Amino acid sequence: MIITTNIINEFLQTRQATDEICAPLKIEDYVVQPIVDVSPPKWHLGHTSWFFEEFILTKHKPGYEPYDKRYKYIFNSYYETAGEHILRTKRGNLTRPTVEEVYSYRDFITQQLTEFLEDHLNEELFDLMTIGIHHEKQHQELLISDIKYILGHNPLLPRYSQTFEEHDLEKQKQKWLRIDKGLYDIGYQGRDFCFDNELGVHKVYLAPYKISNKLVTNGEYLEFMEDGGYEKVDLWHAEGWDWIRREHIKAPLYWYWHKTRWKHYTLKGFKEIDPETPVTHISYYEAYAYAQWKGKRLPTEFEWEAGQEVFDWGKRWEWTESAYLPYPGFAKAAGPLGEYNGKFMVNQKVLRGASVATSRKHSRSTYRNFFHPHLRWQYTGIRLAQ
Amino acid sequence: MIITTNIINEFLQTRQATDEICAPLKIEDYVVQPIVDVSPPKWHLGHTSWFFEEFILTKHKPGYEPYDKRYKYIFNSYYETAGEHILRTKRGNLTRPTVEEVYSYRDFITQQLTEFLEDHLNEELFDLMTIGIHHEKQHQELLISDIKYILGHNPLLPRYSQTFEEHDLEKQKQKWLRIDKGLYDIGYQGRDFCFDNELGVHKVYLAPYKISNKLVTNGEYLEFMEDGGYEKVDLWHAEGWDWIRREHIKAPLYWYWHKTRWKHYTLKGFKEIDPETPVTHISYYEAYAYAQWKGKRLPTEFEWEAGQEVFDWGKRWEWTESAYLPYPGFAKAAGPLGEYNGKFMVNQKVLRGASVATSRKHSRSTYRNFFHPHLRWQYTGIRLAQ
Amino acid sequence: MIITTNIINEFLQTRQATDEICAPLKIEDYVVQPIVDVSPPKWHLGHTSWFFEEFILTKHKPGYEPYDKRYKYIFNSYYETAGEHILRTKRGNLTRPTVEEVYSYRDFITQQLTEFLEDHLNEELFDLMTIGIHHEKQHQELLISDIKYILGHNPLLPRYSQTFEEHDLEKQKQKWLRIDKGLYDIGYQGRDFCFDNELGVHKVYLAPYKISNKLVTNGEYLEFMEDGGYEKVDLWHAEGWDWIRREHIKAPLYWYWHKTRWKHYTLKGFKEIDPETPVTHISYYEAYAYAQWKGKRLPTEFEWEAGQEVFDWGKRWEWTESAYLPYPGFAKAAGPLGEYNGKFMVNQKVLRGASVATSRKHSRSTYRNFFHPHLRWQYTGIRLAQ
Amino acid sequence: MIITTNIINEFLQTRQATDEICAPLKIEDYVVQPIVDVSPPKWHLGHTSWFFEEFILTKHKPGYEPYDKRYKYIFNSYYETAGEHILRTKRGNLTRPTVEEVYSYRDFITQQLTEFLEDHLNEELFDLMTIGIHHEKQHQELLISDIKYILGHNPLLPRYSQTFEEHDLEKQKQKWLRIDKGLYDIGYQGRDFCFDNELGVHKVYLAPYKISNKLVTNGEYLEFMEDGGYEKVDLWHAEGWDWIRREHIKAPLYWYWHKTRWKHYTLKGFKEIDPETPVTHISYYEAYAYAQWKGKRLPTEFEWEAGQEVFDWGKRWEWTESAYLPYPGFAKAAGPLGEYNGKFMVNQKVLRGASVATSRKHSRSTYRNFFHPHLRWQYTGIRLAQ
Repeated sequence: MIITTNIINEFLQTRQATDEICAPLKIEDYVVQPIVDVSPPKWHLGHTSWFFEEFILTKHKPGYEPYDKRYKYIFNSYYETAGEHILRTKRGNLTRPTVEEVYSYRDFITQQLTEFLEDHLNEELFDLMTIGIHHEKQHQELLISDIKYILGHNPLLPRYSQTFEEHDLEKQKQKWLRIDKGLYDIGYQGRDFCFDNELGVHKVYLAPYKISNKLVTNGEYLEFMEDGGYEKVDLWHAEGWDWIRREHIKAPLYWYWHKTRWKHYTLKGFKEIDPETPVTHISYYEAYAYAQWKGKRLPTEFEWEAGQEVFDWGKRWEWTESAYLPYPGFAKAAGPLGEYNGKFMVNQKVLRGASVATSRKHSRSTYRNFFHPHLRWQYTGIRLAQ
Repeated sequence: MIITTNIINEFLQTRQATDEICAPLKIEDYVVQPIVDVSPPKWHLGHTSWFFEEFILTKHKPGYEPYDKRYKYIFNSYYETAGEHILRTKRGNLTRPTVEEVYSYRDFITQQLTEFLEDHLNEELFDLMTIGIHHEKQHQELLISDIKYILGHNPLLPRYSQTFEEHDLEKQKQKWLRIDKGLYDIGYQGRDFCFDNELGVHKVYLAPYKISNKLVTNGEYLEFMEDGGYEKVDLWHAEGWDWIRREHIKAPLYWYWHKTRWKHYTLKGFKEIDPETPVTHISYYEAYAYAQWKGKRLPTEFEWEAGQEVFDWGKRWEWTESAYLPYPGFAKAAGPLGEYNGKFMVNQKVLRGASVATSRKHSRSTYRNFFHPHLRWQYTGIRLAQ
Repeated sequence: MIITTNIINEFLQTRQATDEICAPLKIEDYVVQPIVDVSPPKWHLGHTSWFFEEFILTKHKPGYEPYDKRYKYIFNSYYETAGEHILRTKRGNLTRPTVEEVYSYRDFITQQLTEFLEDHLNEELFDLMTIGIHHEKQHQELLISDIKYILGHNPLLPRYSQTFEEHDLEKQKQKWLRIDKGLYDIGYQGRDFCFDNELGVHKVYLAPYKISNKLVTNGEYLEFMEDGGYEKVDLWHAEGWDWIRREHIKAPLYWYWHKTRWKHYTLKGFKEIDPETPVTHISYYEAYAYAQWKGKRLPTEFEWEAGQEVFDWGKRWEWTESAYLPYPGFAKAAGPLGEYNGKFMVNQKVLRGASVATSRKHSRSTYRNFFHPHLRWQYTGIRLAQ
Repeated sequence: MIITTNIINEFLQTRQATDEICAPLKIEDYVVQPIVDVSPPKWHLGHTSWFFEEFILTKHKPGYEPYDKRYKYIFNSYYETAGEHILRTKRGNLTRPTVEEVYSYRDFITQQLTEFLEDHLNEELFDLMTIGIHHEKQHQELLISDIKYILGHNPLLPRYSQTFEEHDLEKQKQKWLRIDKGLYDIGYQGRDFCFDNELGVHKVYLAPYKISNKLVTNGEYLEFMEDGGYEKVDLWHAEGWDWIRREHIKAPLYWYWHKTRWKHYTLKGFKEIDPETPVTHISYYEAYAYAQWKGKRLPTEFEWEAGQEVFDWGKRWEWTESAYLPYPGFAKAAGPLGEYNGKFMVNQKVLRGASVATSRKHSRSTYRNFFHPHLRWQYTGIRLAQ
């Protein structure tokens, strides 16, 4: 019974947190998809509701009829086995259902699920609810990044909020923390929720290494820029070099040259850049080039995990040198939820840590985030190793 | 004085007509741009206001300050000489200014212009107002087509209105009307408004020809489809054939195969196809292929204009065989408004007539509309000649 | 009998002329296709042989077996009704059949055709031979342009020939020739060969106009360039402007900035530009922009044809303002040869005259050449009208 | 002295082996580049000569003048720091220098280098020569794959050679070889040549695993195809699935459906598929999907290297699950040769082993080959682990 209450409370708090993220938006902001990686906020709201409906209500509540059969097509994402889905690049053209209709759908699902669980919660449903809640927390993080992209690419550079703090100071003095060689246990060992890609606890041998106690700051990154970092071919991967040439990349995302200096768009509006705060919105290619320029390197995800107790983290998703690959013994779950992680394990890089956009109770030292190496719209960062 | 009143009334009626077209829309519908040829309704509202502001208030009202200097960048279209404009393909990502803000801008311009003209109307301003009003009427037509595209490509196929009638019956029996050979005067000869591309009245010699009294109907077009018209390469231009292959075109735009038969999306919703109403939303390539299949041809724009008194027209924009070219003696106006028509005179086909989307007082027998040969989102139609 | 001898002689001379065009080439030069509009010389040789084989030997010689059945697939071009053809963009990857094998095929067809015709020539075959010969003459012209493209885009800028003269002086003083208004007969009226697109002699009414006695020279075109012609948006069609921006066009094709001045690649090698010779390798967009800059215009194809007796022509294909459209009464021939011209009658501009690459006996005052408005690899030129 | 002779002999033998690979080619075959990953054989010949010229003769032979200064531009590849290079996608349009001229260049370099080394060999030159020789051996492998691509995509499917054997039987019975857990030393430990990406011997901990004694055969792969492997979305990575859909992939490269069964193009011509020989020309995506279908997985590169003594290898490059990443302690060499490997260490998969195209003395158990996961033109293969 306590468990029932707890999971329902956690569910309701999660739903509320999503609503709060969207509260400052105008209706128009919910609709668009400026690049394929960004989804319309409206779609996030619908999709996180459809996820609960599809995998819990439809499958487990006897006699449940979908709220609107067409929503399965509209709000499905990659779940190929769950039926045809709308092409990801077309989401931004869908003006209907309206924002109001999506909120009604959302409220309906919240209500239905709460009532259903009060009487029927069991272990299987508990596990599905846990996945659904963490799924929605992931979308909260994406929502913040996507909203920033939508507003930060509008020529009016509108403010999202007066209070959302993206840029804490990184005040510590730089130190190199030594980590001993040895066999380390990698992977999630607790009893709470984790994603399947964290499982398969296994040993990894690490040679001795040093890792920085702090993130690279805007000021340090500006030195790299001013030293011509974006023009020195030998600092870059071949694909990274092609990318910065093709896309005319000369600075982190959201940095604009304003008369005499760089300024940047933040969720509080168009602002001066503080040299003491950690640089963000840089791609893996840029993180790697910066490390090359410094004569250092990025840590592997194993070095990061083995060393994470001795440094602070949580402001930026930190690029690692590791490719996103299955742990030994990784096995996909059967059925649609088995699609969750395994099918992305190629051509992506692992990020570790968490960011200012990460929702409450959603960070773990074993959490493995992953993105293609050119992506920058998340709150990414750089921690050096050697 | 009467002229002043008349032009102001005409202006206010035109503004009101635009508002009425948008009245059934949800806020979300104003924002998106599903293809490059379609503009967000919000942009049409802003652009038609900016046009009056830029070419009348800013240029002619002493001391006038722009409502918002950034709107020039956002709501400019092709007027290259009027300053940098936002890339046409990015309009659909702009969530701000909001719909409400655009309507405020719109009201402000309407108000300012009305007040200014009451005291200062002169011949130059009268001419500019006339252009501005006709410019807005053109956008009314585009608004209807663009709204249909936005709603008609939504998987929910939402209804726009219960009363907008797109499909009048074409009840007459087919007749071939004979037109004698001779020298015909082509071009606008009246004293009211016309666009510059209609000017340069000139003689064109026409051999005797016959032209149909009626438009091709859905039923007739279905015969072409059922006879394999879309699979017979010799009926098509090489570029038309490539286009139908690449885009998998098998029917007019908005026709969907529904279980056992074709149905189509209309502004009243998803409906049965009436075989007696004129076919619409076909490209020039399809109009040409249909004519080839019938052993007929499309009329030239000169044949159309010379013969237009003997048949009814006005429901569909009618594709002609003529390319869009300058009339002899055509000269662009100096300045930004000179860009209006001349720079499009390559790679486009002339359409003659008017359509159910054409606004009141906006059709003339000399009016030359023009589109690229693959475009279908307008209310196009087919009239045969031989 | 005399006719037989004549057509066979004409055929053999045509074949020989093709061989002579290719004589300076290295084997490697025969193979490549640097852009889709250029075909490998080897393909021209095969295609012009296949044309005779397919439409004469296979169809009319009893018991004839194709030289190699696979060649129909390889050397077919657009003749969709004559069977599947190899994608035009892949021609440049075909290393086999080798150049030697293609010449063997070519010799075989020449031999077979000569023998067959000596005994069996009739009116139908005479007509087909005439088409085949003119078809090969068209390809001779393309061969020269394509060879120039292949060699002129090689960083070594190799010379094709020491004698091929592309650039005659245009020595006459500029005069404006007056042509009276009136009804002119347009179209081919002779009894020799012409293409189907020249047929349908018909009357066109022309208002009085003036046409230049000479072509625009390199020196005149340089004035346009030096006056910033490529940077003045109001001189250009919207599509032309987009094209010069996207492709970074700043000068005619083959013009390269060499230290302090423009030089150009010619078939004799990399040379100084003579200001007195007619400019060439310019697109329709550039021809139009030049005319706008001069305050003149391009003639229509009817003005050109009506006036052509009073000026010299033959060095450059001259862009006209006319779109490529069917003459009144134009009807495609039945069968594959009916594809020859009609299916290209959209989105192209007419060029009139002939060029230094035009083969002997292949120019007529009624000849209608046509290209897309951005193409420059032919010997195009500019004649002004007003 | 013996060392001098040895390295010169090895050099001359390598040059000769390259010549022998090209001996069966027609001149036309040397010129084309059907896809960006394939280079024209002519380019390989020039590039491997330029490499020796640029890094040995130009840098180390006093007074040496380049054979042709323009060749640096034409035959450079990725060596960004060695000067501007010709765009990789344009190599296939270069008809000059001719094949004969490239062979002359090649002979000149061979001659110059031999003479120079006889008198001046020192340790630095020995190292550079060793790299140059291995560089040319790598290109020998590419030459064979590229030649197969060029001939195997020609509709005539011409034979390359009557003797080149690509398909040895894989006769052994399937066995699962057990490898114990433990810390293994990974990386090259010998005293001969290896590439920089093999260096940094380091310990890797491996859990116990089993690896197959043999490669997956054509017959086994056909079972996967016949079981609908290419239609089962859950077997594939998301990017792999998109790739097979977009490219219409239904079988390994060079497999063509011939009337009633699959056949394949081999260097001996178009042949029946032997079910007992190892499948080849499959992408990483296909290798992964096959393993998923079998309920197995691909080995990591460390598992492969640790286990390689207990199984036979050398016929196929074997896809591993490992991403191509730097070993701990990897450091790029300074200067242009430092570009050799490091800049490709993103978005690629490691292959281990060697193939029928690998040149003599060019295989090592520590050799790390790498390709993008969709590439198939190399002799790739599948070995399973569990």
